[in-house]
Amino acid sequence: MREAYKSKLDGLADELATMCEAVGVAIRKATDALLNADLALAEEVISEDLHIDELRNRAEGNAFALLALQAPVATDLRVVVSAIHAGGDLERMGDLALHVASAARRRHPAYVLPDEVKPYFAEMGKEACQLAHKAAEVIRHPEVNKARELDADDDAMDDLHRHMFTVLMSPDWTHGVAAAVDATLLARFYERYGDHAVAVARRMVYVITGEMPSPLEV
Amino acid sequence: MREAYKSKLDGLADELATMCEAVGVAIRKATDALLNADLALAEEVISEDLHIDELRNRAEGNAFALLALQAPVATDLRVVVSAIHAGGDLERMGDLALHVASAARRRHPAYVLPDEVKPYFAEMGKEACQLAHKAAEVIRHPEVNKARELDADDDAMDDLHRHMFTVLMSPDWTHGVAAAVDATLLARFYERYGDHAVAVARRMVYVITGEMPSPLEV
Repeated sequence: MREAYKSKLDGLADELATMCEAVGVAIRKATDALLNADLALAEEVISEDLHIDELRNRAEGNAFALLALQAPVATDLRVVVSAIHAGGDLERMGDLALHVASAARRRHPAYVLPDEVKPYFAEMGKEACQLAHKAAEVIRHPEVNKARELDADDDAMDDLHRHMFTVLMSPDWTHGVAAAVDATLLARFYERYGDHAVAVARRMVYVITGEMPSPLEV
Repeated sequence: MREAYKSKLDGLADELATMCEAVGVAIRKATDALLNADLALAEEVISEDLHIDELRNRAEGNAFALLALQAPVATDLRVVVSAIHAGGDLERMGDLALHVASAARRRHPAYVLPDEVKPYFAEMGKEACQLAHKAAEVIRHPEVNKARELDADDDAMDDLHRHMFTVLMSPDWTHGVAAAVDATLLARFYERYGDHAVAVARRMVYVITGEMPSPLEV
């Protein structure tokens, strides 16, 4: 009985790590679709989001079953509650990747972004993908220092996001309002993606230490 | 013992309904601050967000204690898990109201928005506030039909959001890129606020019926 329980708890962590990897792939592909106006790749991301939603539903179902059947306490309960939260964050990261892909599809065959800002988005895409993969590592091998690293890594994303606004708001912006609106929303999607990855890592700190690093949500 | 348990479950629902009301007030005040360039009101919303965060921490702590000490099953377990999710959604709604207030503070004494689009934001603010208060009602008096109504109500918000983009992207937009970027983000904040209110209501449908209306997250 205890064996089966332990293996279910490990299985839950494994499902979440798999979700991290899936949303990491999703944002990488979505960024490529965005930068290269690649319709087929955009549609791949959009259809694969269903798989991410299924992973989340399965993880949530398993967390619920653990609570109902095993009534975990102490650290185990923190693991399950954190898994419930992390599942929500990860599903949202998948949705944000889907939003990026949808923008690429909407403007196809045109490019969504002017060449001038593409390097920022390439960088944000890289950061986002790395954050997701680091979150997967933290879930598979929980370590407070590594979990805290994500916070610092996300600062790079926030800097890129802030810098994008400086570029958009500058009098040198010559690409018009529509391109600025698209770039504003897209930059916001990447920033939120990073925030959710940090939230997942913070939950892991809570699992390990029993203390929630503030703020609770980013 | 059972009495104390029941009263703790009711207390949890009460805390969430109180949070709904608090975030409803926050978005109403934030909208007024935005439309009237009212710095004092913007700062009120920003400082009151700490109180919303405290409410969330308390609700989360109480949900955790219920799981640890009472090991609820069936409907009671659904209530507690839904409360954990709803707490996250409501805290986020508070953050979004804070973002609106921050925009008002950042541009003060100037107005963030051109007069032309103010009526849309007044309307989005009204819708947002109503969604929060309806979510409070649904938590206090769970009813599937009322919970489902929020979904339909949120369509009005989505229509306003979509319409805002038509206005921003139109060649008639004469207010420049910076105002368009601000309006884009603000409209997004209201839209997300509505989505989170709908997510809270969907969780209540799940509590009542045991079936999660899809999609799990909006």
